[in-house]
Amino acid sequence: MTQEHDNSNDPLHAKKKAWSGRFSEPVDAFVLRYTASVDFDKRMAMADIDGSLAHAAMLAKVGVITEQDLADIRRGMAQIREEITSGAFEWQLELEDVHLNIEARLTALIGDAGKRLHTGRSRNDQVATDIRLYLRSEIDVIVARLEHLQEVMVHQAKQHAGLIMPGFTHMQVAQPVTFGHHMLAYVEMFERDRERMLDLRRRVNRSPLGAAALAGTTYPIDREYSASLLGFEAVAQNSLDAVSDRDFAIEFCSAAAVLMMHISRLSEELVIWMSQRFAFIKLPDRFTTGSSIMPQKKNPDVPETARGKAGRVYGDLIAMLTLMKGTPLAYNKDFQEDKEPVFDAIDTVKDTLRAFCDMMAGVEPQADAMHHAAQAGYPTATDLADYLVRHGTPFRTAHDIVGQTVRAASERGCGLEDLPLDVLKSFSPAIEEDVYEVLKLEGSVNARNHLGGTAPAQVAKQVERWEAIISERAAKAA
Amino acid sequence: MTQEHDNSNDPLHAKKKAWSGRFSEPVDAFVLRYTASVDFDKRMAMADIDGSLAHAAMLAKVGVITEQDLADIRRGMAQIREEITSGAFEWQLELEDVHLNIEARLTALIGDAGKRLHTGRSRNDQVATDIRLYLRSEIDVIVARLEHLQEVMVHQAKQHAGLIMPGFTHMQVAQPVTFGHHMLAYVEMFERDRERMLDLRRRVNRSPLGAAALAGTTYPIDREYSASLLGFEAVAQNSLDAVSDRDFAIEFCSAAAVLMMHISRLSEELVIWMSQRFAFIKLPDRFTTGSSIMPQKKNPDVPETARGKAGRVYGDLIAMLTLMKGTPLAYNKDFQEDKEPVFDAIDTVKDTLRAFCDMMAGVEPQADAMHHAAQAGYPTATDLADYLVRHGTPFRTAHDIVGQTVRAASERGCGLEDLPLDVLKSFSPAIEEDVYEVLKLEGSVNARNHLGGTAPAQVAKQVERWEAIISERAAKAA
Amino acid sequence: MTQEHDNSNDPLHAKKKAWSGRFSEPVDAFVLRYTASVDFDKRMAMADIDGSLAHAAMLAKVGVITEQDLADIRRGMAQIREEITSGAFEWQLELEDVHLNIEARLTALIGDAGKRLHTGRSRNDQVATDIRLYLRSEIDVIVARLEHLQEVMVHQAKQHAGLIMPGFTHMQVAQPVTFGHHMLAYVEMFERDRERMLDLRRRVNRSPLGAAALAGTTYPIDREYSASLLGFEAVAQNSLDAVSDRDFAIEFCSAAAVLMMHISRLSEELVIWMSQRFAFIKLPDRFTTGSSIMPQKKNPDVPETARGKAGRVYGDLIAMLTLMKGTPLAYNKDFQEDKEPVFDAIDTVKDTLRAFCDMMAGVEPQADAMHHAAQAGYPTATDLADYLVRHGTPFRTAHDIVGQTVRAASERGCGLEDLPLDVLKSFSPAIEEDVYEVLKLEGSVNARNHLGGTAPAQVAKQVERWEAIISERAAKAA
Amino acid sequence: MTQEHDNSNDPLHAKKKAWSGRFSEPVDAFVLRYTASVDFDKRMAMADIDGSLAHAAMLAKVGVITEQDLADIRRGMAQIREEITSGAFEWQLELEDVHLNIEARLTALIGDAGKRLHTGRSRNDQVATDIRLYLRSEIDVIVARLEHLQEVMVHQAKQHAGLIMPGFTHMQVAQPVTFGHHMLAYVEMFERDRERMLDLRRRVNRSPLGAAALAGTTYPIDREYSASLLGFEAVAQNSLDAVSDRDFAIEFCSAAAVLMMHISRLSEELVIWMSQRFAFIKLPDRFTTGSSIMPQKKNPDVPETARGKAGRVYGDLIAMLTLMKGTPLAYNKDFQEDKEPVFDAIDTVKDTLRAFCDMMAGVEPQADAMHHAAQAGYPTATDLADYLVRHGTPFRTAHDIVGQTVRAASERGCGLEDLPLDVLKSFSPAIEEDVYEVLKLEGSVNARNHLGGTAPAQVAKQVERWEAIISERAAKAA
Repeated sequence: MTQEHDNSNDPLHAKKKAWSGRFSEPVDAFVLRYTASVDFDKRMAMADIDGSLAHAAMLAKVGVITEQDLADIRRGMAQIREEITSGAFEWQLELEDVHLNIEARLTALIGDAGKRLHTGRSRNDQVATDIRLYLRSEIDVIVARLEHLQEVMVHQAKQHAGLIMPGFTHMQVAQPVTFGHHMLAYVEMFERDRERMLDLRRRVNRSPLGAAALAGTTYPIDREYSASLLGFEAVAQNSLDAVSDRDFAIEFCSAAAVLMMHISRLSEELVIWMSQRFAFIKLPDRFTTGSSIMPQKKNPDVPETARGKAGRVYGDLIAMLTLMKGTPLAYNKDFQEDKEPVFDAIDTVKDTLRAFCDMMAGVEPQADAMHHAAQAGYPTATDLADYLVRHGTPFRTAHDIVGQTVRAASERGCGLEDLPLDVLKSFSPAIEEDVYEVLKLEGSVNARNHLGGTAPAQVAKQVERWEAIISERAAKAA
Repeated sequence: MTQEHDNSNDPLHAKKKAWSGRFSEPVDAFVLRYTASVDFDKRMAMADIDGSLAHAAMLAKVGVITEQDLADIRRGMAQIREEITSGAFEWQLELEDVHLNIEARLTALIGDAGKRLHTGRSRNDQVATDIRLYLRSEIDVIVARLEHLQEVMVHQAKQHAGLIMPGFTHMQVAQPVTFGHHMLAYVEMFERDRERMLDLRRRVNRSPLGAAALAGTTYPIDREYSASLLGFEAVAQNSLDAVSDRDFAIEFCSAAAVLMMHISRLSEELVIWMSQRFAFIKLPDRFTTGSSIMPQKKNPDVPETARGKAGRVYGDLIAMLTLMKGTPLAYNKDFQEDKEPVFDAIDTVKDTLRAFCDMMAGVEPQADAMHHAAQAGYPTATDLADYLVRHGTPFRTAHDIVGQTVRAASERGCGLEDLPLDVLKSFSPAIEEDVYEVLKLEGSVNARNHLGGTAPAQVAKQVERWEAIISERAAKAA
Repeated sequence: MTQEHDNSNDPLHAKKKAWSGRFSEPVDAFVLRYTASVDFDKRMAMADIDGSLAHAAMLAKVGVITEQDLADIRRGMAQIREEITSGAFEWQLELEDVHLNIEARLTALIGDAGKRLHTGRSRNDQVATDIRLYLRSEIDVIVARLEHLQEVMVHQAKQHAGLIMPGFTHMQVAQPVTFGHHMLAYVEMFERDRERMLDLRRRVNRSPLGAAALAGTTYPIDREYSASLLGFEAVAQNSLDAVSDRDFAIEFCSAAAVLMMHISRLSEELVIWMSQRFAFIKLPDRFTTGSSIMPQKKNPDVPETARGKAGRVYGDLIAMLTLMKGTPLAYNKDFQEDKEPVFDAIDTVKDTLRAFCDMMAGVEPQADAMHHAAQAGYPTATDLADYLVRHGTPFRTAHDIVGQTVRAASERGCGLEDLPLDVLKSFSPAIEEDVYEVLKLEGSVNARNHLGGTAPAQVAKQVERWEAIISERAAKAA
Repeated sequence: MTQEHDNSNDPLHAKKKAWSGRFSEPVDAFVLRYTASVDFDKRMAMADIDGSLAHAAMLAKVGVITEQDLADIRRGMAQIREEITSGAFEWQLELEDVHLNIEARLTALIGDAGKRLHTGRSRNDQVATDIRLYLRSEIDVIVARLEHLQEVMVHQAKQHAGLIMPGFTHMQVAQPVTFGHHMLAYVEMFERDRERMLDLRRRVNRSPLGAAALAGTTYPIDREYSASLLGFEAVAQNSLDAVSDRDFAIEFCSAAAVLMMHISRLSEELVIWMSQRFAFIKLPDRFTTGSSIMPQKKNPDVPETARGKAGRVYGDLIAMLTLMKGTPLAYNKDFQEDKEPVFDAIDTVKDTLRAFCDMMAGVEPQADAMHHAAQAGYPTATDLADYLVRHGTPFRTAHDIVGQTVRAASERGCGLEDLPLDVLKSFSPAIEEDVYEVLKLEGSVNARNHLGGTAPAQVAKQVERWEAIISERAAKAA
């Protein structure tokens, strides 16, 4: 940068200095901060150490470093791990990133062996290894929390398998369903979220280590050995791809976005159910905020916050997709910007799932309000039509009859089940006393008694299915 | 809508009429068009017919309709299929969507049996079934095209396994790689795209049929039977979830977005390689446009168009995610807006893959230009350092030596491989005649001879691996 | 493309043919379709003709073409305009885009003068001119529709300036407001949408004509003259920027996205208000769909569809932003992909505004349901505290008193206004008979009587302000 | 929350406790952290204090608080300001947000007057005021940095107004342009960014203060007075809108996204220009990183980082749009999530502009490489055609002649300007000695001598125009 020093008479240079003078931070320090990543990538420190230890073990195995080197590296890394855990480690912005910070400390601690650690490796494959290890372990936490949340909601479904509430389409009362059935709908959603996390975990869990800068290395490395030490399922088969692949990060953000979309739907329902017009549920106070002046007011802060947080994960996804658009092979500095969106998505999903595990356990459905609401809008009209069809009335005729019946009830300001039998018979002689079973909410839900239907018997079956799955998972985990 | 007819004296009404008067299209026709979907959902007609036939067969099996009804329905649907294929079918906007258009025609053709088809079903589960069947078959086409494209690029890699080109990081020449190695990097990316398509296909391939409006139906339906007739792998286990789940559509758009991101990267490289400054490749004329006045000018229209099209698929993904954000259970009319983004993503991906299958087969790498470019910037400096380390020089010392050597070559305006041996030896006595093998581009690529490395021998191994995979797939498909 | 013809023995070529053979459409026709735009850009035909006429007039003015040429061009274009309007114009895919289709027809009609039209111009500046002219006129339509919608909602606000409804925060009843006040909140939002459209219109309304391919032209063109003929406010000052600037399209999509976000909020409220639990409004039947079997069921199809359509405009915005990311100067073929997102955003916004103009005029607020709902949750507790503070009670003490009072009312199951005076006085001797004015909903809304407050008197003032604005606009338009 | 205390025998409760037990952080502390904002909103502290002081002054003016109260508040706030500036202020997570932290401290410092500050105000209008004040001041910084960057690039344009480089379309050499002209293209883009910032600033600069929770307040507040004290241009006219409007934040993110898109385009060019194949520019070392082993290697870290950062701002925009989608009036807790995207967009834009101000001043165009590259691909063929047309040859014939001429040059492996006059004349007798002026790069650029064209004379004019604008701005600022 000698040109910077001897051009003091250049007016452009003078001008530039003038501009820089307007900023409070010196140019070099500023550029360093602008391009450095240690502030956010230090959270991958343990993954970085794990990756380095596996790399060192591999180098020793193939004879590139000695067993003594390896022992030194292990000793040094053990101390660094402690320093980081205890908070004693001094992170330096000048050392740019987590990798150089740890390597510098290692060399300070153990000398030459530390300098040999980076043999046959580059920061390009190193950072790709670190983020995969880090993300893999966070995926496992997320999957565990999804399973917890499922467990909580299956428990709610079991408690309330037969509790009737209105089922809505278009936010209009359509047909009665049970609260247990409603809870299980979300259990299904979270199951798909879990499937997606496990699917993409396979693609996270591949080793880029050994791809070096972009083309591999001239050392006789054993990539499968280091991969196996790190628990990777496979080795990335192409070095150019290995250092520039961020698919797994995008895919994670995408699965996280869908998960948060599900949370946003559940949150929307909780918020609506908490409104005085619905009053379908009560939430424990700690998930709401009140007002000193209006003791009855409970703002559903946690669901609202969660609903809002869906946006940031959508944003993380778009950040990642934009980042990678149109970038040539192999590594580009742009890719450093992959970390913050992924970290933000991880944090948001983990915290939100934790909040929902606690909160959903405390949801108290209000049977009376739900039952009352389920009676609005003649929700068993479909059942009456089905009754008539089963008694031989052609479908179209049945529809007409039901239309007339609903009109009659509407005029009297009552429900279908409140019409006397003779009135009902005046619309169709096929109607008998047993129609009242059909017209009641209980009859309606009980009648939807097939796989996936809302009948309490089916909900109970689904709860059993889920409890078996949960037990099996617990057994595996143990 | 009686309030519409007797309020002619209401000034608001008069005003409203006045406003409507400013528009050229009558209100009712306009609202119909605004909320109708037949213009775009008619492309699911065959899936709709398949779904209806399976539903009818199930209804007949469980005794809800007669065998004669079923026979009539099959006869009617066969004719409708023909009418649609031949273009004779008259689509009517008044009938809103593909489902009602086909059902109306069926009833016109076969009478009462047509009216019975919709028993135990609702448009909510019907449309969810249709879109899944449709998307499933399009995913299969996309997977086949991905495999074609891989085949083309593996062929290119085989032809040019040893053709040396510069490997770039930060768009700076870093180390030499081979064109075959570079092609295979994309084969890996497309393999992950294929994996994602197959992963999500499992979640597409679940049957919502029988969920009815939202709660199931009172008819004794056999959901597993209709699912098996349609080739579904599983049955959606919760009716509320079944009619409101659009995860699979989001997941498809997300996988499509990543695929297009890969295409955008390849396109970026093709565009750069086509520029006169690089001149690394020639493309067949039909993938470019020229100018009558500048015969040498070849604009890489196809890669540029493809790069631009990445944006629309990103947009489709955001459209889907936004659509679902915060929507309560179960079905909402909003969900009708799921189709156009998915259709657009399907069309874009299919067309782009087809264009790339053709185009990539025609890419002609220009060996001289690539070789010349690979020599810029001392790309084998790393190799020299590795050479010194192998001959016992400590790593840090080796680096210093290489720095001095590069400076010497730079001053002479030549490459490292052009320095005489005595000059090289003046920097380190460890250097011998065999160093020239290391300093040549060929030596450099050959030395990266481990799994995933750029050595032609490794590229050949990868080509073999891919050819085996391709053969296996072909065998399976046959 | 000679290399295509003499390589029939090349296995790669044979293979490629084989692949192409798997597709139903010939390669060249397919590539043409993949890169052509006439299917969607023909809607800019009139703008293209306008632009050409202005360019021709300018060429004649500066002497590059003759007056006879200009007359011929005008005659030809008049005929083409007619042919397009009548549907007689034959669009040809082979001619790629709207520009070449019209130019080819012009030359067929008038001969040599047609060939001279393109002098000093390129398709790059031509298409940039067309899209600006087209978008400018669509912005004017959108602004007019925004103004119509404001007019409708101001009318509603006037009718219902004093109609009390619950004001919500967190979907919890907070304080009473008036329906008129609520309507005017949206009028403010649409006013900002209008401002944004007018702000960005200035940036749309600049002439790129004369930038030619990228560098300007060697003809002595008068860019300010052609700009003035086309009603442009300014001339783009840099030719490289002029052909590659798509800011205005992004900015339009962004303003459209915010507009649709407002619509999504209003739609959300309409959907909630239509639910049986709220029953705050009735919508004319034609904006809803019912069910033959449930005559009372009214699905709010139009608001739901509109809410869903917000997603597609968000998607259009992301498509445009992604498209432009990282593209070097000047023109790139990618930019052709700018049109469909912009067209889609235009169509969606225009149709949605039209639907809302009609629909919002027909919204019938249900005073009883609103009033009843407003009484839930002690919404005037804040008013009581303010009353006490005005009578000298310190704020913190006032809060405590209100807390006790609310508890008392809660225990009796009544509202604050239902507590007898002696009970109220038992909490604070400062309370007098006039407190009932404060505790009533009417008193509460009347008391918020400052600029922007919900007092009916303030709502009436705002209605007056808006009516004056509307009149002024109408006067200007006339 | 009494239900929490007496249900120790409830198995659900027991279970919930068990789940909570799996987490390391106590439930209540966790929920507090999940919903609190003080970690990120404390950066608005000065805006919060400004807003409170204006509110207090207004309360004193209308007599709601005493002059003594006001004096106390001013004194307390002065101390708090100092504490925050010095770092002595203790932020408490328990106090949730910046507002409560400051208010609590104020009350601790001055007692009762502190409790009176919040009279006639709510956190809903308070936070809306704060974010507007904060954003307004950041917009001013951004506008200033945009102007600095323009200044730097105008200076570059002035220095290199006549320096010829190839102009590209489709990354293919199209016609020669000048480096100054190229720089000015970006000055135009940044000017539009500046316009957008100023346009949206008007919408930021409106006072929501006095809207209170959602409906206004019962105190006789003077909103115009507090607005004027805070420098707001206008008062939000509707209280419901005022507390729930986040348009300005979306609009800011959108303008920031377009700005970053421009930066991504410039960065893309810088990265390509830095590649050895182009070598069009040199960058000062401090904006690049090298490698100890490859002294010649300069990775353009700053432009790459900036290009990558475009993605995060796109993400911020999507986060904001998603957040607001479908939220009912008025305030919802979701809105708290508006801050981090806005803060991130502010930081990213500010830092990036600063980096570019410094870096663009140091860009050194390499005249030889540019000139050499500009000669590739017969870039003056268009000029030859124009020459022939000016000499009376019909356009179509001229094109044919140029085609033959280019072919002849191509066969000889030379440029058009290298063909002897007799050879040129053999294609057209109209060609004379003066054609060589036209065929040279200098002749080509000089000929594009109209408004916006690339002729050095025009570039100089534009530089003058910009220098006048810059002077005017400096005068205004002074």
